[in-house]
Amino acid sequence: MQSLSDRIISRIADVPDFPKPGILYKDITPIFQDPSLCADMLAAMKEEFEMKNIEAVLGMESRGFLFGLPLAIALDVPFVLVRKKGKLPREAFAVSYSLEYGEATIEMHKDALTPGQRVLIHDDVLATGGTALAAAKLVEMAGAQVVGFSFISALSFLNGEEALQQYSSHISTFVNY
Amino acid sequence: MQSLSDRIISRIADVPDFPKPGILYKDITPIFQDPSLCADMLAAMKEEFEMKNIEAVLGMESRGFLFGLPLAIALDVPFVLVRKKGKLPREAFAVSYSLEYGEATIEMHKDALTPGQRVLIHDDVLATGGTALAAAKLVEMAGAQVVGFSFISALSFLNGEEALQQYSSHISTFVNY
Repeated sequence: MQSLSDRIISRIADVPDFPKPGILYKDITPIFQDPSLCADMLAAMKEEFEMKNIEAVLGMESRGFLFGLPLAIALDVPFVLVRKKGKLPREAFAVSYSLEYGEATIEMHKDALTPGQRVLIHDDVLATGGTALAAAKLVEMAGAQVVGFSFISALSFLNGEEALQQYSSHISTFVNY
Repeated sequence: MQSLSDRIISRIADVPDFPKPGILYKDITPIFQDPSLCADMLAAMKEEFEMKNIEAVLGMESRGFLFGLPLAIALDVPFVLVRKKGKLPREAFAVSYSLEYGEATIEMHKDALTPGQRVLIHDDVLATGGTALAAAKLVEMAGAQVVGFSFISALSFLNGEEALQQYSSHISTFVNY
């Protein structure tokens, strides 16, 4: 029987020269063509984190919204949207950072988390870790704590896991390139 | 006992003058603070569409990704990402349209749907219907058919439902303003 990682890898498409020449892009969209695979991934994520007393899941716009909400529902905890600058309508914390292909600012509503809350940060891909670290800063600005990071895949040659070590949190990925 | 619609309405925040003066923005993000409400909404969406032989769910970037994927998993059908221009790495169909606050182009991978496939389009809010109609065009470009539209809320004074009548599809919303 194929492992969950192998099933995911078989659904990830290599796209050369996207978004710019020399980059081999890992396209995860075909994963979503397979609902049983998605259900099994969700069950595995739930199992991995349900003993860690997670009290909120943060999902990074926009692909972190995909598994982020169902994972929060599965763990029976609030789901918090981390959005790109200017998209959230109410008072928000903001963090700017450099990312693989440029610069970005992400925001989170100020009332989204409460002090001390145990938070899991979810995104689709871990690259340099810049986005995840920025999300962790948002969590800290709210006085809450980062307990774990969850990704579908990691581009290990970009050393994202090292960048996240400072949180001594549980880092979960299905696939490492 | 409170109805599902009432529970949703109690979680929608009115934000005056966003994204510009004179607009009363309906902020749905507090809904996601309530995992039991989200689970009940998902169950209701599944129940509403499971007899309609849906063969794929389309989710509109980015808030249509939130319930879109878990709804597809619940219906046991593929989930298709409709993204803003330039985000999808492989060959894509594109449709440009005017929307409430400007202009936009959305895209869908050419291999995401097969001819004849019965498709449900999901987004968070139905406003003028411009985005949903553009998504319906993407479905038609792939030779597939639109069987239903699913939204969390509709801004009825913008007449989105009328705009979608041409599809004689099932239109589902929890809350109408």
